[in-house]
Amino acid sequence: MPKRQFASDNHAPIVREVIEQILRANTNHAPAYGEDQITRNAKLEIARFLGRGNGDTDNIQFVPTGTGANVLCLSSFCQTWEAVLCHELSHMNTDECAAPELTGHLKLLPLTGDFGKIDLNHAASIMNRVHGIHGVKPTVISVTQVTELGTVYSLEELAAIRDFADEHNLKLHIDGARLFNALITLGIDAPTFIKHIRPDALSLGGTKIGGMICEAAYLFDYPQENELIPEYLRKQMAQLVSKGRFISAQWLGLLRDDVALRYAAKANAMAELLENKIAEADVRILQKREANSLFVELWPDEAETLLEKGWLFYNFLEPRQYRLMTSWDTEESDIDEFIEDIKPITAARTI
Amino acid sequence: MPKRQFASDNHAPIVREVIEQILRANTNHAPAYGEDQITRNAKLEIARFLGRGNGDTDNIQFVPTGTGANVLCLSSFCQTWEAVLCHELSHMNTDECAAPELTGHLKLLPLTGDFGKIDLNHAASIMNRVHGIHGVKPTVISVTQVTELGTVYSLEELAAIRDFADEHNLKLHIDGARLFNALITLGIDAPTFIKHIRPDALSLGGTKIGGMICEAAYLFDYPQENELIPEYLRKQMAQLVSKGRFISAQWLGLLRDDVALRYAAKANAMAELLENKIAEADVRILQKREANSLFVELWPDEAETLLEKGWLFYNFLEPRQYRLMTSWDTEESDIDEFIEDIKPITAARTI
Amino acid sequence: MPKRQFASDNHAPIVREVIEQILRANTNHAPAYGEDQITRNAKLEIARFLGRGNGDTDNIQFVPTGTGANVLCLSSFCQTWEAVLCHELSHMNTDECAAPELTGHLKLLPLTGDFGKIDLNHAASIMNRVHGIHGVKPTVISVTQVTELGTVYSLEELAAIRDFADEHNLKLHIDGARLFNALITLGIDAPTFIKHIRPDALSLGGTKIGGMICEAAYLFDYPQENELIPEYLRKQMAQLVSKGRFISAQWLGLLRDDVALRYAAKANAMAELLENKIAEADVRILQKREANSLFVELWPDEAETLLEKGWLFYNFLEPRQYRLMTSWDTEESDIDEFIEDIKPITAARTI
Amino acid sequence: MPKRQFASDNHAPIVREVIEQILRANTNHAPAYGEDQITRNAKLEIARFLGRGNGDTDNIQFVPTGTGANVLCLSSFCQTWEAVLCHELSHMNTDECAAPELTGHLKLLPLTGDFGKIDLNHAASIMNRVHGIHGVKPTVISVTQVTELGTVYSLEELAAIRDFADEHNLKLHIDGARLFNALITLGIDAPTFIKHIRPDALSLGGTKIGGMICEAAYLFDYPQENELIPEYLRKQMAQLVSKGRFISAQWLGLLRDDVALRYAAKANAMAELLENKIAEADVRILQKREANSLFVELWPDEAETLLEKGWLFYNFLEPRQYRLMTSWDTEESDIDEFIEDIKPITAARTI
Repeated sequence: MPKRQFASDNHAPIVREVIEQILRANTNHAPAYGEDQITRNAKLEIARFLGRGNGDTDNIQFVPTGTGANVLCLSSFCQTWEAVLCHELSHMNTDECAAPELTGHLKLLPLTGDFGKIDLNHAASIMNRVHGIHGVKPTVISVTQVTELGTVYSLEELAAIRDFADEHNLKLHIDGARLFNALITLGIDAPTFIKHIRPDALSLGGTKIGGMICEAAYLFDYPQENELIPEYLRKQMAQLVSKGRFISAQWLGLLRDDVALRYAAKANAMAELLENKIAEADVRILQKREANSLFVELWPDEAETLLEKGWLFYNFLEPRQYRLMTSWDTEESDIDEFIEDIKPITAARTI
Repeated sequence: MPKRQFASDNHAPIVREVIEQILRANTNHAPAYGEDQITRNAKLEIARFLGRGNGDTDNIQFVPTGTGANVLCLSSFCQTWEAVLCHELSHMNTDECAAPELTGHLKLLPLTGDFGKIDLNHAASIMNRVHGIHGVKPTVISVTQVTELGTVYSLEELAAIRDFADEHNLKLHIDGARLFNALITLGIDAPTFIKHIRPDALSLGGTKIGGMICEAAYLFDYPQENELIPEYLRKQMAQLVSKGRFISAQWLGLLRDDVALRYAAKANAMAELLENKIAEADVRILQKREANSLFVELWPDEAETLLEKGWLFYNFLEPRQYRLMTSWDTEESDIDEFIEDIKPITAARTI
Repeated sequence: MPKRQFASDNHAPIVREVIEQILRANTNHAPAYGEDQITRNAKLEIARFLGRGNGDTDNIQFVPTGTGANVLCLSSFCQTWEAVLCHELSHMNTDECAAPELTGHLKLLPLTGDFGKIDLNHAASIMNRVHGIHGVKPTVISVTQVTELGTVYSLEELAAIRDFADEHNLKLHIDGARLFNALITLGIDAPTFIKHIRPDALSLGGTKIGGMICEAAYLFDYPQENELIPEYLRKQMAQLVSKGRFISAQWLGLLRDDVALRYAAKANAMAELLENKIAEADVRILQKREANSLFVELWPDEAETLLEKGWLFYNFLEPRQYRLMTSWDTEESDIDEFIEDIKPITAARTI
Repeated sequence: MPKRQFASDNHAPIVREVIEQILRANTNHAPAYGEDQITRNAKLEIARFLGRGNGDTDNIQFVPTGTGANVLCLSSFCQTWEAVLCHELSHMNTDECAAPELTGHLKLLPLTGDFGKIDLNHAASIMNRVHGIHGVKPTVISVTQVTELGTVYSLEELAAIRDFADEHNLKLHIDGARLFNALITLGIDAPTFIKHIRPDALSLGGTKIGGMICEAAYLFDYPQENELIPEYLRKQMAQLVSKGRFISAQWLGLLRDDVALRYAAKANAMAELLENKIAEADVRILQKREANSLFVELWPDEAETLLEKGWLFYNFLEPRQYRLMTSWDTEESDIDEFIEDIKPITAARTI
């Protein structure tokens, strides 16, 4: 059985730097529910990372799951009759078991669009259909960066969405479960990204890039008089962990010394290597790789053979489309082993 | 500033045995979302702890918060028109920000009762008032063990509640956020407790007794054909963490070699010591201590003086009622220091 | 089978004046969803009735059910983490099948109190327990006038609740499903009542006093900038009927020429007559009658005998407590017939 | 101002036969909440109309709004993690203000498709994406007959959807707010329609075809042991009117002597006449008329001129697309007047 797989960055362990901060936090008593000093430090760290000075006008909530972060961001802006525009393949629409609707009490309005990216024409047609109190009021548009299909919105694409949001008086939310990987792809730092896009809310994922249970909901310039809304919602959604310092500590581990960014660069680089090497093994690449996942074509029986050899990875949306994902700990040797196991399979293909 | 406080067992750090299991789990890739081997092991361990053989007919879900465990247990039995009888001071009614109603989609029916324990007469009067489809259908009765007021239901009291549940066709849920402490107080092991009470659901808390983020929803003899219901609910409630092995590993740390029970014994013993020593300091004890919390009478200015000396603890329900809580790491020296700081205060009282 | 029963004013037919207005409204086309002229007229009429001039700062929604009116009033003030103080026997807590929680997305905090009236001491103890984001935030206190137990809050009692609401920054809601009967009991007109109590919201019931499907949610001085909130909620709660003019027309029938008040006076007077005559039949009255319902003591077999004779009425809360309710169409002859049927039953009692 | 408009069949008054039944029902007392004899009769009548014998295995709920009927039908089959496939332009997705999600506690999965009809390929691609507990479980497919775009599914199209439902183990719901009009278009009677499609649930609309407040949720062969589920839901959704006999009576008026069907035939015939005559006035018809609505092309300033002349009708989805709808009371003279007012407008067009 391979030590490391290409199934998901969720399968990877915790990075050393996060473990160290957990151990460092594990001393004496500290106030519960995020009232501790480590949490205050982590909030400053995350604000600094995003280029928000000390983040005084921002509202930051640490939560245990990415679904929790998404729903918290959205619900902080939506009443029950308000709605969120999102891609039909977005995590919140397909992989959160209706948490936005049932736990967040809002409606999603799914949009089509190639490569997992929102088609603004579809968004515009929905906005044009809004008619008073009969339908919901679209209030937020949510984009996923990196998308579920491994693609990365360019700054131009994001700027167009920002313009669309401004034009239609929508808040802009970014599901950044893999934002670190996207920043590497775009080749820019977080402050530049944030200044360019001016999101109103960001779900920032720390788990996939090396944390243990480490997610954040970041609300930009959230009204001071409403500051308790996300707090109440987090509690109501059962997302307020009692020993909060141990989520916060993980963020210190990920953000200090650019740890998460460096691991993201590693994961992306490994995906690029995989992309290059797998082409040599005669495997068709279905879509240009942009971050840390690669979509390739395999016949089901070929995939089956690889699974029997101990490799774990997922079929994705189409019968012959498979996702290969690298993570912070992927090694070149993993790729080589995998390619070695593929080669006889593709070599056996008859034309 | 004291290293350890009497504010809450939630303020305590993580026990060594849990840290060790987290570190041991942190190796190579493992399936996400609880599909890993460590999770399977932890489920067996928790079933064994409760005397359930290999727990084949039980349904076990690990979650990050106690609120999540409670709501998951209740929602697994309730439709939207069904309701849960619980004490008016129970955590689910007063400290979960309407999570049972809004995240769990059910109604709570709060009951009165002295010392945080349900008054079955009140429960009976509510059951007698049920009239068809106009009101909700009570479906579950929930008891908290240890209660919010630090009391412990006796086996006789619990048996009466079990009988009441049977008579009225209710499921019985135990909020066991501090069940380990209660077992020590009762002087029985978990299998005896479970066999005696036959709960249908148990929220078992690991965080307060030394875990980091470590809670479980345990459903006894849950119908095999409904086994996905708690799974769907956990996902929908944003309680399914991706790197699930790291919650499961904590349970291994707590349950193997009776670690949690031994720490609970320590916490209870320290509360007993505090009870004995504080009496000497002329502080009135408001209610017989039963587990790891002590309710004492202080005047607000006295409490203020102690807070200024760095001690943290909470006022509770009544103006002069304060809760002092020990935890797994409380040392006799902590108690001595605290008593030393109290003595001059009570000595200064004029009669 | 008696033509008229003492079961409920809900069992009564529609008054002539309402029918006339429905027929008058039934001509040609009119805009749907309450955008028609009859609805505008009905809003003016209801504002006038309550002494609100043309009601310019008020928000009025016509809905088909009393539960709809209650939930709409409450939800117009509450977020999902906010809560409503109400009597434990109030209709919203016991007879609306969790509509406030599940359709209105808020939590009820039930209060004890004799004779169906809120005990403000209990309310105060709950307010004192509120602690930040852990529990819900009480936002509204709701009183029912006439109460479920047929009692009527005095102006002094209501003023005390108004003071309590002001002190704790709560909105005050009145469930006035039988407000017309209460006004008769109090001997004051609606404007005096409203000026004295200054409610923030009123569920005004028209169905029980002679309407067909005829309820209203009245929000006093509701912020202009939020005016669409109750509109969205009404639609979302499926309470927006398409041919809205036919609910509005009913209100014209009830409010013009004091129709509803006159019928309420009739119903109350008949209840008083019943109270006087039934005492002669040796039936114990359990509670002083205040509006249009009378609570009397009967043995279950006595009630059974009356049911066999065709009389319909309900047992209420206690084994020997029965509610007898008059309605707008109760005649003295109904009472006489009923008494004639009771007399042999009570005469047969052995002491 | 014209007496009758082409805005919506919701703008029309109540038919004489419904009024007569309301008046007939308005006598003496009757049990509330649908426990009366008229309701029992109306249930038999509706079962007979649908060819269901006495409807013994069916579950029928009368409700005041079409949104209520839809949500009740869907919620009777769905848990909170279950979902409903429906057209993206369906009433439930665009005109019910998220009632299915927020009042019904389920998720909608909108589908594309031309002319308001579901594209089964899109449905199939969504079914293929379902992956265990991460996403919702599709449980119902809902079709609207007549669709929001005035089209009518053929029996073949519906049979294909029925097959799809069977293949994927989905319940089939029909939103029949205008089912009477569709039956006329298809030229078949209701029993034939039902036998052919075997729906599991039907929202049957009586208001648009001549009722006042008159909708029904019809569940076919609903499990006897679950019979209270729709009852509880109806109450919880505030859809249970107290004087239920007055909704039921309307159904007697609509169903006896084929009243509704005859009025539907009238409305459809008038739409056909409008279609023929408007073509002569040089107005482009955008889509073949199938029931009682016609979609035509007008320039906004042309529509404005007509509005100024007192005509009311709605723009629909596209900038130059306007919907003209006939109703049970449309007269040929209405059409002639309307055409007369159009002619000078289109005559003034420059090419």
